[in-house]
Order: sequence, then C-alpha cells, then structure tokens
Amino acid sequence: MAVGPGTLPEFFPVAGVRLGIASAGIKKPGRKDLVVFELAEGSRVAGIFTTNQFCAAPVTVARQHLAEAAPRYLLINTGNANAGTGEQGLNDALRCCSALSGEVGVAAAEVLPFSTGVIGESLPVDKLVAAMPAALADLSAGNWAQAAAGIMTTDTRPKGASRQVKVGDQVIAISGISKGAGMIRPNMATMLGFVATDANIEPGLLQTLVAELGDQSFNRITIDSDTSTNDACMLVATGQNGGELITTDSPCLPPFRAALADVFMELAHAIVRDGEGATKFVTLDVSEAASQDEALAVAYTVAHSPLVKTALYASDPNWGRILAAVGRAGVEGMDLNAIEIWLGDVCLVRNGGRADDYSEERGQAVMDREEITIGISLKRGAVRERVWTCDFSHDYVTINAEYRT
Amino acid sequence: MAVGPGTLPEFFPVAGVRLGIASAGIKKPGRKDLVVFELAEGSRVAGIFTTNQFCAAPVTVARQHLAEAAPRYLLINTGNANAGTGEQGLNDALRCCSALSGEVGVAAAEVLPFSTGVIGESLPVDKLVAAMPAALADLSAGNWAQAAAGIMTTDTRPKGASRQVKVGDQVIAISGISKGAGMIRPNMATMLGFVATDANIEPGLLQTLVAELGDQSFNRITIDSDTSTNDACMLVATGQNGGELITTDSPCLPPFRAALADVFMELAHAIVRDGEGATKFVTLDVSEAASQDEALAVAYTVAHSPLVKTALYASDPNWGRILAAVGRAGVEGMDLNAIEIWLGDVCLVRNGGRADDYSEERGQAVMDREEITIGISLKRGAVRERVWTCDFSHDYVTINAEYRT
Repeated sequence: MAVGPGTLPEFFPVAGVRLGIASAGIKKPGRKDLVVFELAEGSRVAGIFTTNQFCAAPVTVARQHLAEAAPRYLLINTGNANAGTGEQGLNDALRCCSALSGEVGVAAAEVLPFSTGVIGESLPVDKLVAAMPAALADLSAGNWAQAAAGIMTTDTRPKGASRQVKVGDQVIAISGISKGAGMIRPNMATMLGFVATDANIEPGLLQTLVAELGDQSFNRITIDSDTSTNDACMLVATGQNGGELITTDSPCLPPFRAALADVFMELAHAIVRDGEGATKFVTLDVSEAASQDEALAVAYTVAHSPLVKTALYASDPNWGRILAAVGRAGVEGMDLNAIEIWLGDVCLVRNGGRADDYSEERGQAVMDREEITIGISLKRGAVRERVWTCDFSHDYVTINAEYRT
Repeated sequence: MAVGPGTLPEFFPVAGVRLGIASAGIKKPGRKDLVVFELAEGSRVAGIFTTNQFCAAPVTVARQHLAEAAPRYLLINTGNANAGTGEQGLNDALRCCSALSGEVGVAAAEVLPFSTGVIGESLPVDKLVAAMPAALADLSAGNWAQAAAGIMTTDTRPKGASRQVKVGDQVIAISGISKGAGMIRPNMATMLGFVATDANIEPGLLQTLVAELGDQSFNRITIDSDTSTNDACMLVATGQNGGELITTDSPCLPPFRAALADVFMELAHAIVRDGEGATKFVTLDVSEAASQDEALAVAYTVAHSPLVKTALYASDPNWGRILAAVGRAGVEGMDLNAIEIWLGDVCLVRNGGRADDYSEERGQAVMDREEITIGISLKRGAVRERVWTCDFSHDYVTINAEYRT
C-alpha cells in the first residue's frame, strides 16, 4: 500500500553527475542493489547524518571521508546496512571505497559509502566489488530514475523530485532521489536522500542549505519513530551549469533555495506516502505553541501514538485518542479549555470537549480521505510546526513481522 | 490473545471492605459495568493518578474529594471515560457522587468516582444512578472476583492478586484488582488499580507506599506508550484486622511492604499479559546505567519501538532492531563497543557487533518462548531498572481499528 500516485517526475539531468546501477546479488540474485554517483571534479558535497548513537560503519566512514577530501563518487548498496558490525564493518566499508577508487583512479577518501538493509550481518564485500565494473560501465547523466529504483529496500516505489530554476541568465537543474519506508524517524536526515544541482554553491552555504532544508523536510517525517542507524542525506553542487558562484548574498539564492526546498520536501513526503503499510498521508499541524520544542513534542506524540495511527487506518474520527495524546506530550500547564483540535476544516475539540458544531458525519467525511491534516492549536504563543506521518495498518505488522523470513 | 494462564487467585477477604456489582447498561445491555467499594468508617485511602494534562472529570473530582474527606465509597463505571467532556463532565461526576451519597447517607465528598471507556462522550448519569441500588444490594466481602470482572473494558480476563501476611500476632489481608489492556503507559498509576488491606496504616505511610510501590509496578509497564486520561490506583487500609497501627518504624512494615509490593507487581504484570493483542510478556532489564533516567530512557525506547515489538510478535531474534532502538534512546556518549545485549541467557551483542558465540538457533530458542527478558547492560554505572511490555500483533491493529465500530 502507498498513498497518492507516486509516479516519478521527469528528471532534469544535472551537469557533472552521472549515475550507474548494477546488480551485486547482495540479498536477491538479479536485483539492482548497487548505485554509483560520479561527480565532476570541483563538485562540492555537504551532508547530514543519523543521530543514532550506534551509527553504521558507512556513516562513520562517509563522515571521515567528507572531512578529508572533496568526494568524486558516492557508492550505495541496499540489502545490507553494515550496521552493528563492529571493527569488521569499518574495514568492509573502507575496502569498498578502496576497490572503487582503484577502478577509477581517485583516492579512497574521495569515495563516500552508503548502505541500507538488514542490520548486523557482514557486508558481502566481494559481491559488491565484483559488481563495480558493471555499475561504472552503466554511468550516464540520464539514469536518475534507474538510480531511484536501485536504492529501494522495502519501498514499494521509487522516489524522486526534480526542478529547473532560471535565475538571472543562468539555468539551474536540481534532481534528487530518496528511499525509506520503515525505521523512519530521521533525526538529522533520512535513509537515504541524494540531491544534486549543477549550480556553483559556496561550500559553507551548501552545508547550511542541507542542514536547514533537511531539518524542515526529512527531519519532520516519522513512520514508526524508529531512527535508523544509517540515515544520510547528501547535497551535491557540481558547479557545471556555467553560472556564477552562489553565496549568501546572491540575488539568485532565494529562488534557488525555494526550488531546493521543494525538492527536499517532495522527497521527504514521498517516504511517508510509501510508509510501510501506509494507507493515509497525515499532516500534523501544531500552531500557537509557546516554543518550537513544545510544538514538536505535541506533533510527534500524536504522530507516534499507536492508538491515533490505528484509528487513522480505520478512518475513525476518534478524537479522544488525539486529545489524550496531546495531553501526554509532556507540555506543562496546557489548558484543555483553550486548545482547539481540527480534522481538516472540521473542529473536533473546543472549550474542553467536543466542539458544539461537530458531528460524526462531518468528521467521517474528512477521515475518509487519503490525505488528512490534524490541526492542533495550543493558544499559548505564535510558533507553528508541521510533521508528516502515515497510519498504522495490518500491513505494517505483516511487513515487519516477516521482514527477515 | 493474552500471555500465561491468567487465572484469578483465591481472594482473602479484607475486613472492612464490601464490593457490589451491577449492570447499568452503559455500553452494552446486561454487561456488568458498575462496581461499588464500601469502606468501613475509619478506613484510610491514598491514591495516585494519571499525569496526562487532560485528565478526565472523575480524576479531578476524586482528587478533590480525597483532599476533603475520608472516602467511604469508590464508585467505578466502565463503558464511558467521562474524559474530554468539559464542564458538563465535572457536573456529571459530581451528580453520580451525590446520588450514591444520598442512597447511603454519607457526604458526597466521601464518594470517589472512577470511569473508564470511550473518551469524549457524555456520561449517561441516569443509567448509572438507576443501577446504584442493585450494586448496593449486592455488597459483600466475598465479591472480589466479580468486581475484577466488573471493571474490565477491552481486557480479555479479570486481574487480581491477594496475599495474607502474618506479622507478630496480627494477620493482614491484602487484596487488589486492576484493569487495562490498551492506552497503557501509566505515568503515575494505571487505569485502574484498587488494592485494599485490613491493616491499620498511618496515613502518611499509606501515601508513601502507594507512590513508591506504584512507581515500581504500574509505572514500569507499557503496552502502547499511550498514557490514559483516566489512570488511577487507590490503596485502602481499613484498620479492621484488629492489629496495631503500622508506622515507618514498625517491625511489621518490611514483611507487609513486601507482600503489598507483590500484589502491586502482580496486578501490573497482569495488565501487560492481557495487553491488546499480546502474545509475549517481555521484561526489559537495563543494567549498569549511569542514572535512573538513562536506564528508563533505554528501556522505554526499546519497549515502544514498533519494529522491536513486531519482531517479538514474529518470534524473530532481530537484534539489530534492539540495537538501533538503544542507539536512538537519547543517551549521549554510549559506547557501542562496551554494551551488551542479551536475550534471556543468550548474548546477542558484544564488542560492537554480534556476539562471537551467538547463533540464530540459540536466539530463536529464547524467542520462541512466551515470556522473554531482553537484558541491556550499558557498562556506564550501577543503576538497574526494569520495564515490562508486550509485543505488537495483528490483533492490536484489529482491536484498535475496530474499537468504536
């Protein structure tokens, strides 16, 4: 199950980026499970990574390499997360980087590794290395859709977003792909997002953009509250579009930033829409909070409540469960008589109880939709935060009870 | 589904406590949904209540009445929580107290109301009032098992515990009942626990006992992380056993306290064993933590992880999910290379990865059991905390997707 059409966009090629896909047979023979990004010399890369304390070996290595050198290759495998694999896992990630660097003649530190899949099993390095020549032979600027499919695990469909922005006399392409359907509550980024542009972006600004836009998109989605060990989101700027350097003061920054924000948000939402077992796409819109912390506490408490999520699955406007979740969010001194809870444009709760003009019919009409906004107004301040999630269905249990078997 | 035999004990009658059960037809005609506790004059009552900011009307009224007078009656209904019902809900709870007090000739403040069931619907006061005479006519010291059944909602079986302690020349009876199967993550108590003893307990000590023992039992269980609006746990001491006053310095306090702690723990565990859709009873045993806060953060993060809970349902020793949950618990500076994770007596994780002597066969053997302990040793200090939970099954989704229909 998944919410919305979920078709891939037409991708604008990004000058300076080529993608190659191959089958290493990591988990299933014949499955495309290896993706290589080749980045033109001079490309700049910024990234954000999981905050899980037990981050996977490739996350550790990618962080180190990013600090040491300008990346020329991103190497991504599915089917095995290389997480919880100790010292051996670090060696395995490094061996993969070395093998690819040997094939193409760059330093090992110019390769960033990314892995996703089962935790705790050794990475089958030999299989990956054997498939690298095929991935390199496949390199093409037109392979975005194939790469989106090549990084899928329990995803039911590939995820991508693309924009072309004309600013002044330069034309900027932005394309990105993402994956993820379970173990999703990114806490710096999601597993995995790759966005590239051919614009020429000042390095400090690039890091600011990935951090800020990642925070507003990937860091605002949750499927099951389980922050992965392998989350990463990378933003590449190749500078190959021939345009001038974009800095904090550039007049072209605002439109570029807006397009980039769109791409981030679309990729993040695509993950929620394809959440394991998802039948609903749900926006938690918390407003009039006294602080960002309390707005997010309320939004996430509701978004993670198994009772709210199963009611959403049942299309049941069970507002008592929403109310109870708001009440246990850990925000001191909330006034039940002041707050309002809305389901779309229907007010559920006002003056401490069910809104006078509420009827089950009106609530049901909103609940029956595939895309639902739960609005919660705390009447304590002016802060607004939104978080996106999905419902909790039989299929979520089936998928996760049967994942390894 | 439920875990373990779950048979009720033989209840020791508690001198000074009589229980009456009746059918008010609140949700289903003919269902026993009204329970009255009659407490002998001179009984002392202490209680703990939900920390949900939006506590239900009966919780507010029970707190007030407890502060104003020595309770003589506990009035409990199922089928309607009288929560999210605003000013009207408070009036309804008070009307019930007044009606019962009128029947028996005590002050309204000597009645404590408790409600459990659907949130957000008006309490059918007239139905409750009409059933009160039948409940009062039913009053008997031998009705503990019937009362345990009378407070059930989505529970599949009644829950009770009983002990008799001989200390010096006095004999003390302790009996208790509890209910709850969903919306369970008590944060001061659970919905609902009632424990009574015929011992004569000094009032300050009684409050200390309910707070401390409630904290170690009801406050250490979680089914779905959803703290109810109606949680309450009451401890009654009638002083009718003819024994001397028990104070902090009494030599009979330690054995009495131990028996009372057993009753609390048994009642709390009974709720987990009957968790909605539960097929496993799971102990999270976090040891060698640097603080209670971090031990509980780790224990609850694992206990609430939908991925861990669905793996438990599948009897899948998927230790990577446990590892990932520990890593996202918000404890800074954990050393993955130091920690150990155990499944029963089988070590899963050591030295940053899968333990050398681990095999799927050994992990599977533990996972196949109905009662499972997940041990997590953080190697940071000397604090140990335990939390009890259950798995997450198809039936949980079914029960909660269909609760109101």
